[in-house]
Amino acid sequence: MIEAKAYAAQDENTPLAPWSFERREVGPHDVQFDILFCGVCHSDLHQIKNDWFPGIFPMVPGHEIVGRVIKVGDHVKNFKVGDLAGTGCMVDSCQVCENCKQDLEQYCLEGSTQTYNSYERDGKTPTYGGYSNTIVVREEFVLHISDKVDLAAVAPLLCAGITTYSPLRHWKVGKGHKLAVLGLGGLGHMAVKFGVAFGAEVTVLSTSPKKEEDAKKLGAHHFVVTSDEAQVKAAKGTFDFILDTVSAEHDFNMYLSLLRTNGVHICVGVPPKPAEIQAFSLLGGRKSLAGSGIGGIKETQGMLDFCAEHNIVSDIELIDIKNIQPAYDRMVKGDVRYRFVIDMATL
Amino acid sequence: MIEAKAYAAQDENTPLAPWSFERREVGPHDVQFDILFCGVCHSDLHQIKNDWFPGIFPMVPGHEIVGRVIKVGDHVKNFKVGDLAGTGCMVDSCQVCENCKQDLEQYCLEGSTQTYNSYERDGKTPTYGGYSNTIVVREEFVLHISDKVDLAAVAPLLCAGITTYSPLRHWKVGKGHKLAVLGLGGLGHMAVKFGVAFGAEVTVLSTSPKKEEDAKKLGAHHFVVTSDEAQVKAAKGTFDFILDTVSAEHDFNMYLSLLRTNGVHICVGVPPKPAEIQAFSLLGGRKSLAGSGIGGIKETQGMLDFCAEHNIVSDIELIDIKNIQPAYDRMVKGDVRYRFVIDMATL
Repeated sequence: MIEAKAYAAQDENTPLAPWSFERREVGPHDVQFDILFCGVCHSDLHQIKNDWFPGIFPMVPGHEIVGRVIKVGDHVKNFKVGDLAGTGCMVDSCQVCENCKQDLEQYCLEGSTQTYNSYERDGKTPTYGGYSNTIVVREEFVLHISDKVDLAAVAPLLCAGITTYSPLRHWKVGKGHKLAVLGLGGLGHMAVKFGVAFGAEVTVLSTSPKKEEDAKKLGAHHFVVTSDEAQVKAAKGTFDFILDTVSAEHDFNMYLSLLRTNGVHICVGVPPKPAEIQAFSLLGGRKSLAGSGIGGIKETQGMLDFCAEHNIVSDIELIDIKNIQPAYDRMVKGDVRYRFVIDMATL
Repeated sequence: MIEAKAYAAQDENTPLAPWSFERREVGPHDVQFDILFCGVCHSDLHQIKNDWFPGIFPMVPGHEIVGRVIKVGDHVKNFKVGDLAGTGCMVDSCQVCENCKQDLEQYCLEGSTQTYNSYERDGKTPTYGGYSNTIVVREEFVLHISDKVDLAAVAPLLCAGITTYSPLRHWKVGKGHKLAVLGLGGLGHMAVKFGVAFGAEVTVLSTSPKKEEDAKKLGAHHFVVTSDEAQVKAAKGTFDFILDTVSAEHDFNMYLSLLRTNGVHICVGVPPKPAEIQAFSLLGGRKSLAGSGIGGIKETQGMLDFCAEHNIVSDIELIDIKNIQPAYDRMVKGDVRYRFVIDMATL
């Protein structure tokens, strides 16, 4: 076994603290890479707090992982020692169901194996995430990372990036479309960059007027303060798509009213309570409320390649892992521009 | 003005009763037709009871109207005296907005004029529906009716028919698709007929096991009793589309779990309370909850022509208008196969 170091939560009430554990030996189809940077996703905090479901403890969070390959299994074809590598939210799936066969491992009918707070395919070996010094992942779930872009700023692409890229591609958002991005956080700021890169006319919807300057710097064409009734009224019926990155409670019917006929409101955040949808909000313009979860491995590689080509990365604040708790506290308050990334050299 | 007879509700607490009123003279672009049959829609009852919003009284319900033309205006080109004619849920719209120009008058950005419980474009003249002996409608909102099919059974196509036909066409439901029809009432039984006609594999989802025989007679290939856990479990993740015709409260998350990846749950009913949607119900398979309202005039004519060609009509019970109240009582209990139609000769 491979000795590994990490920051882990021992239960839902204990702060993250140093922890040692073992990772599996590198199998014939595995890639081991030393983790250089790991992004901090709001879902890390949700999971160590058991907000969604009872977690598997000790828990090592982190699913925006980049680093350098130090060992490969005998049958590994696409990676060699010294390559840059990344892993996102998944480390395995059944590989044989109709969704896996269509490169939609995120919707694996047997359930994909999450990078942490999950079990390997054996159903009993816990997975441990990227707040760690090294990781072993089967080759099919390891991504190639370009050496042309800032590696720390690439890390968040593995979750925040693909989570916003995938629905924009699926719904073919681009030229001629008016796209509203709801919420300007880790996901939202990536949605703005992708929306602009795809040629859409992008509006940021936010409760915070002070985010307007940032939104424009990120490339957004318009900004609507959603607490301002006059601005909301003027925006009624204008958007083809809303990409909703908000994981706090919000009034879906109000946002649906901002869509044009045939408009689609795409949820990628997970609010704590169910969305309450009035039938007339959908019927009155053949509108849809849709959801999308991360993206498949092939699409994630495509997203990384697209980003390398167009010089798109996340806007980040690099932190020392010892400061993870204050970073969580600031993240909860929305006080981060726009993603914390842990420098794993500090472990 | 034209003297007209009708059954009307004087307020939300008074049963329908005979009433006399005036319709406008036939203008240059108007068609007047004597009403021979009028379907009874559940929304008639919702509206006279103020279930959705305060109604305009006296109210003459009825928006599944067929009859024979007795007078046409000087500029009317497409109808002549003696023609069969029909009118559905709309009698006017702005005609100039982008939706009207795209034959989506039902989503008119100025609001379409409903056949009853609405105001003409002047914003002050109430509209009166089809529980009446005669009606005057502008030519663009009058449909041609084939003389090859049972006229009484055609009436419900003007609402129940187009409301189910339109979303199936919009989402291109057909060969290779598994379609679930939720609820086997006035709308549901038409959805089954259209789904089968379009080549889909159709399953009826119903709480009533006793509806299975009828569902199969209507052409459904399968039947799932939604109160039977084993049957529901077996149906998980199997449908490409659910056409949801239910206007009572129901558990949307359970139904969403029956959809395949990328599946769409299309609502055409209006339940009294908002739908409560868990984010994971949508994210966990890129699913959509959509809504659809009736159909445009061009599409309604296309639906009527398709029905005439394929000999599709509604299954009806013809009633005397004096029995409208017991018919309502039975409709509320779901005791109708599958649409009451008023024989207007009984007025």
